[in-house]
Amino acid sequence: MEEVTQLSYALDTFYFLVSGALVMWMAAGFAMLEAGLVRSKNTATILTKNIALFSIACVMYMLMGYNIMYPGEAVSAYWPGVSFLLGGDNSAADVLASDGDIYYSGMSDFFFQVVFVATAMSIVSGAVAERMKMSAFLIFCIFLTGFIYPLQGYWKWGGGFLDANFGFQDFAGSGVVHMCGAAAALAGVLLVGARKGKYGADGHVNALPGANLPLATLGTFILWVGWFGFNGGSELMISNVDEANAVALVFVNTNMAAAGGVLAALLTSRMLFGKIDLTMCLNGALAGLVAITAEPLAPTPLLATVVGAIGGVIVVFSIVTLDKLKIDDPVGAISVHGVVGMWGLVAVLLSNEDATVKGQLVGLVTIGLFVFASSFVVWLVLKAILGLRVSEEDEMVGLDAAECGVEAYPEFSVNK
Amino acid sequence: MEEVTQLSYALDTFYFLVSGALVMWMAAGFAMLEAGLVRSKNTATILTKNIALFSIACVMYMLMGYNIMYPGEAVSAYWPGVSFLLGGDNSAADVLASDGDIYYSGMSDFFFQVVFVATAMSIVSGAVAERMKMSAFLIFCIFLTGFIYPLQGYWKWGGGFLDANFGFQDFAGSGVVHMCGAAAALAGVLLVGARKGKYGADGHVNALPGANLPLATLGTFILWVGWFGFNGGSELMISNVDEANAVALVFVNTNMAAAGGVLAALLTSRMLFGKIDLTMCLNGALAGLVAITAEPLAPTPLLATVVGAIGGVIVVFSIVTLDKLKIDDPVGAISVHGVVGMWGLVAVLLSNEDATVKGQLVGLVTIGLFVFASSFVVWLVLKAILGLRVSEEDEMVGLDAAECGVEAYPEFSVNK
Amino acid sequence: MEEVTQLSYALDTFYFLVSGALVMWMAAGFAMLEAGLVRSKNTATILTKNIALFSIACVMYMLMGYNIMYPGEAVSAYWPGVSFLLGGDNSAADVLASDGDIYYSGMSDFFFQVVFVATAMSIVSGAVAERMKMSAFLIFCIFLTGFIYPLQGYWKWGGGFLDANFGFQDFAGSGVVHMCGAAAALAGVLLVGARKGKYGADGHVNALPGANLPLATLGTFILWVGWFGFNGGSELMISNVDEANAVALVFVNTNMAAAGGVLAALLTSRMLFGKIDLTMCLNGALAGLVAITAEPLAPTPLLATVVGAIGGVIVVFSIVTLDKLKIDDPVGAISVHGVVGMWGLVAVLLSNEDATVKGQLVGLVTIGLFVFASSFVVWLVLKAILGLRVSEEDEMVGLDAAECGVEAYPEFSVNK
Repeated sequence: MEEVTQLSYALDTFYFLVSGALVMWMAAGFAMLEAGLVRSKNTATILTKNIALFSIACVMYMLMGYNIMYPGEAVSAYWPGVSFLLGGDNSAADVLASDGDIYYSGMSDFFFQVVFVATAMSIVSGAVAERMKMSAFLIFCIFLTGFIYPLQGYWKWGGGFLDANFGFQDFAGSGVVHMCGAAAALAGVLLVGARKGKYGADGHVNALPGANLPLATLGTFILWVGWFGFNGGSELMISNVDEANAVALVFVNTNMAAAGGVLAALLTSRMLFGKIDLTMCLNGALAGLVAITAEPLAPTPLLATVVGAIGGVIVVFSIVTLDKLKIDDPVGAISVHGVVGMWGLVAVLLSNEDATVKGQLVGLVTIGLFVFASSFVVWLVLKAILGLRVSEEDEMVGLDAAECGVEAYPEFSVNK
Repeated sequence: MEEVTQLSYALDTFYFLVSGALVMWMAAGFAMLEAGLVRSKNTATILTKNIALFSIACVMYMLMGYNIMYPGEAVSAYWPGVSFLLGGDNSAADVLASDGDIYYSGMSDFFFQVVFVATAMSIVSGAVAERMKMSAFLIFCIFLTGFIYPLQGYWKWGGGFLDANFGFQDFAGSGVVHMCGAAAALAGVLLVGARKGKYGADGHVNALPGANLPLATLGTFILWVGWFGFNGGSELMISNVDEANAVALVFVNTNMAAAGGVLAALLTSRMLFGKIDLTMCLNGALAGLVAITAEPLAPTPLLATVVGAIGGVIVVFSIVTLDKLKIDDPVGAISVHGVVGMWGLVAVLLSNEDATVKGQLVGLVTIGLFVFASSFVVWLVLKAILGLRVSEEDEMVGLDAAECGVEAYPEFSVNK
Repeated sequence: MEEVTQLSYALDTFYFLVSGALVMWMAAGFAMLEAGLVRSKNTATILTKNIALFSIACVMYMLMGYNIMYPGEAVSAYWPGVSFLLGGDNSAADVLASDGDIYYSGMSDFFFQVVFVATAMSIVSGAVAERMKMSAFLIFCIFLTGFIYPLQGYWKWGGGFLDANFGFQDFAGSGVVHMCGAAAALAGVLLVGARKGKYGADGHVNALPGANLPLATLGTFILWVGWFGFNGGSELMISNVDEANAVALVFVNTNMAAAGGVLAALLTSRMLFGKIDLTMCLNGALAGLVAITAEPLAPTPLLATVVGAIGGVIVVFSIVTLDKLKIDDPVGAISVHGVVGMWGLVAVLLSNEDATVKGQLVGLVTIGLFVFASSFVVWLVLKAILGLRVSEEDEMVGLDAAECGVEAYPEFSVNK
C-alpha cells in the first residue's frame, strides 16, 4: 500500500482514538455531576455505580453488544442476529486494500463505540439515584448495554431500517444515545418511585439539594470537553480537506450550542425563579450539547447557538414539569437527555435537507418506545425478583451506610 | 489537490482542534481554582460566573470579536473596523490552493481563538470574587470579549501596528491574553474595593482562606495540562519536521517553566513564611506558565526553567506587595497574570533576537494601559448605573444566598 | 526530505506529544486519588508533595536522569555513565535522514519520558502519606528521579542488559515504572513505620477512612484516561497501518483490563466484606491498568479483561495481607503498583512468545531488589540526618498545621 494511504489510515485511527479517549472521559463527567447533585449520604453509592456501570458496559459490549450493533451480515433490517466476541482480527489492511471503505483500525472503531454505550448507561444512574438498590441497577446495566442499546443502535447506525434512506438523521446520537438512556431511566424512575420527602402531601415539591456543586460543575465541564470527541469523532474521518473542515465545524457548533444553552437557562431561571440557579446553568450547558448532537454539521454557528439555547429553555421547563408530575429525577437526566434529545432530533429539520419530518418522528418514536418498553420489562422483572428499592430505613440512613459500608465524606457531613 | 497536501491540511487542523479542546479545558481549571480559593459562601456564585463568562465570551466572539481581531481588510493598523458574524464559509480549500498561506480549516482557527478570549476573561472573575454583583460582572464580560480584547489582539496578532516588524514578540499571549485579563481585573478591583474584613484598621492583613484546596490544586493541574494546547497550539502548524520539532520544544519548555515556578515559589514561601504554602506553590506553577508564554520556543529547556522560576519568585513578592497596597485579589490573579505577564514579555529578550527592548516595552505599556483604561471606563459606567458591589449584608451572608439561591456545600459548611 | 516522510514524522511527534500530555495529566490523578484517601488534616500536605514531586522529577530528569537512562554511548550494559543536560539539539531531521531510526522529535521523546519518571515518584507519595516529613520526602525525590529510576530504566529501555534479547518484556512499565515506584515506597514505609492508631495492640486493624471519596474517584478516572497515553504512547509510532492497528489494540486492551479489574475487585470485596467497597473498586481499576501495562499489545481484548480481573482480585487480597503484616500504606499503592506490577510482568508470559519465564523473573527480581535496596539506603541516610517522621504531636494535629500552615478544608472539617 502507498505510504500516503497508510498515513491517512494512521491519522484517521489516531483521530478516532483521541475522540474515544475524550468520550471515555465523559464517564468521569457523569460520575462527578451525579456525585455533586446527590446528598452526601448517597455519594459513595453513586460513585460506585458509575465506575461499575462503565466497566459492565465495556465487558458486555465486547462480549456481544458490538456484534449485535454492527453485525456484518444481519438477519434482517430489524434483527441483526446474535453473535459473540468482537473479532480478534485487528488488521483492517486487507479490507482497506480491497474496497477502501474501512479507512481506520477496527479496534479504534470498537473503542469509540464502547464509550458511547457507557454514556447511554451513565444517564440512567443519575435519574434513579438515592433510592435504587445497587444490585438491581447493575443487573439492569447488563441488559441495556449488552442488548437494548445495541439493538436500536443497529437500526440506525449498523445497517438497520432507520438508516439515512429512511429520512432519519441522528449524527452522533441525540436519539440513539441520549434519548435512549433517558427512556431507560424514565422506565426505572416510574417503577422505583420518588425519593422519600421529595413530594409533600399537599403537592409541595421539596428541594433536596446536592451536596457538592463544585463537583457538579466540574462534571459539566468534563462532559463539555468530552463532547468534542463525542460529536467531533462521529464524523468518522478527518484525513482530507473536506472532512477536516467538517470536523472543525462540528467542534465549533458543539461549543456554541453549549454556550447558548447556558445563557438561555441562566436567563430562563432568572425570570422564573428571580435568582440565577447554578444547577440550571449546568443543565443548560448539557441541554445545548444534547440538542446539537443530532446535527452538529449542517447548521451555521449562529444557528447552532440558537438550537442550543432552545434546548436550554426547554430543560428548565421540563425539570419543573416533571416535578409537577411527581417524576423524581435527582439530576435532571430525563429532561436533559430525553426531552432535549427529542428536541435535538426535531431540530435536525432546521438545517439538514436529507431529514424528513416523518423520518425524524418515526425514528424518535421507534427508539423511544422500544427502549422504554424493553427497559420497563427488565425493571419489572428485577422488581419482582430482587426488588428495585432499598428499605425505607436504608434510604433514611443513606445508601452509603446500607450498601457500600463507606462514607463519601466521613469528616464533613452534618448528618453524622 | 494532491493527497499529501490534503493530509497535511488535515493534520494541522486536527492539531489545532486538539489544542483548542485543551484550552477550552482551561475554563474548568479557572473555575476549580477560583472555587477552591474563595470561601464556601461565595462558591456557587464564582462557579456560575465562570460557566456564564465562558458562554458569553463564545457568543460575543462569534458575533463580532473574531471579526474585529482578524478583520481581513482592516481600516488601519490601529483600527480594524467593525463587522459581524464570522463567515459561514468553512472551505479554506480554495484559499489553500491559491496561495498556500492558509493550511488549516478556518473553523479550527475560530475554535482555537475563541477559547483564548475566554481565558482572558476567566482571569477577571477570580480577582473580583466575593463582592462583585453578578449582573455587573456579566455585562462587563460582554464588553471585554466583544471589543476590548479583540481590538488589542488585532494590534498584535491580527495585522495591527504591534506586529513582529515592530520588535514586539508575544508568542502565545503573556501580554495579549494574560496581562490583558489582569489589567481589566485591576481596574475592576480598584473600583469595587477590598472585601470586608480583609484589611484591618491597623494595617493588618487578614487571611480569608479558601474553602477547598484540593479543588484549587485540581484547577492548577487542569491549567497546566491545558497550557500545552495554549502554547503548543500557538505554533499554528505541525505538519513538517521543523514545525513538529518546534511544537515539541514548546511542550517541553512550557512544562519546565511550570516546574521551575513551583519549586521557586515553594522555596521563596518557605524562606519568607517559614512554612511551605500550598497556594503559593499553585501560584508558582501558574506564574511559570504565564512567564514562558511570551516565548516558549527560543529558550533551551534549562533557560525555560529559569524563566519560570523567576516568575515563581516574582509572584510571591507581588502577592505580598499587593496586599500591602490594599489591592484585594482573592486568588492572586493580578500577580500571576499581570505582574508575571509583564515579566514574560521582558524575558523574551533573553532568547529571541527579533524582539527589541523598545518593542517589548512599548507593546507592554500599550496593551496594559489600553486595557486598563478602557476597562476602567466600562466598570465606572456600570458602577454608576448598576453598582458594582453587593450590599454589606449580602457580602456577610455570602453571595450564594443573595444572588444564586443555592449553596455550594449545603451539608458541610460550618457557616450554617 | 519528501513531504510524505515529513508528514509521517509530524504525525508520530504529535501522537507522542498528545500521549505525553495524557501521562502528565496522571499527575493530577495521583494528587486527587491521594488527597481523597487521606484524612483532611493531612490533605494540603499531600497536595503540596504531589505538585512538588512532579516539579522535582522534571528538573532532575532534565538535568541528568534522561542522560543516564538514554545515554547514547554507554559505558557498559550495566552502567550507562553520567552526563548532564539533555542536548539542546532538537533537530532530529539529520538522524532521520541518515538511518530512519528516529522518526519523531527528540524533544517529544523527552516529554514522554519525563512524565513517566514523575509517575513512578507519584506512587511513593501515597504510601508514606500522613506521617512523613515534607523535607525528607522531597530530598528522596531528587535521588529517585535523578538516579535510581533512570539507572534501572536504562537497563530495560535504554540499551542495558535487560533488553528484549534477555527475554524480559515490559511494554510500558509494569516493572520499570510501577513496581519501581512501589519498591521505593515499600522501603520508605518500612523505615517510617505505621501511622499512629492504625494497628491496635491486639492486632486489630483500624480503618482511617479518607476524607473525600469523590476526589479519589476523580483521581482514578484521571489515571484511567491518562493510561491511554501511558500504554498507547509506548508503542512509540502510529504512522502506518500496522502501527495504527497496534496502538488501537493497546487502547482497547488497556480499557478492558481496567474494566475487568473493577468488576473483579467489586465482586471480591462483596464476597469478603459483605458490602461493595468503593475504594476497592477504585484500586481494582488501577490494578487492572497496572496488570496490562507490561503487555497490552499481544493479548486479545478478552484475555486483557482476564489479566485485569486477576489484578483486581490480587489487589484486594494484597491490601488485606499488608495490613496483617502491619505494613501501613494509606492508599494501597504498594499493592496496586508493586504486587500487581509483579503479576503484570508474569502475565506477559500468557501472550507474548518473546518473553521467557527466566527473563521475566530475573527482570522482576533485579529491578525490584535494586530499587528497594538503593531506596532503602537513601531513606536510611535521610532518617539519620533529618529524620523521616514528624513528631507524634504533629501527626496528631495533622501535617497541614505542622508543615504547611494552611488547611485543605478550613470550613468543613469536624476536627476544628
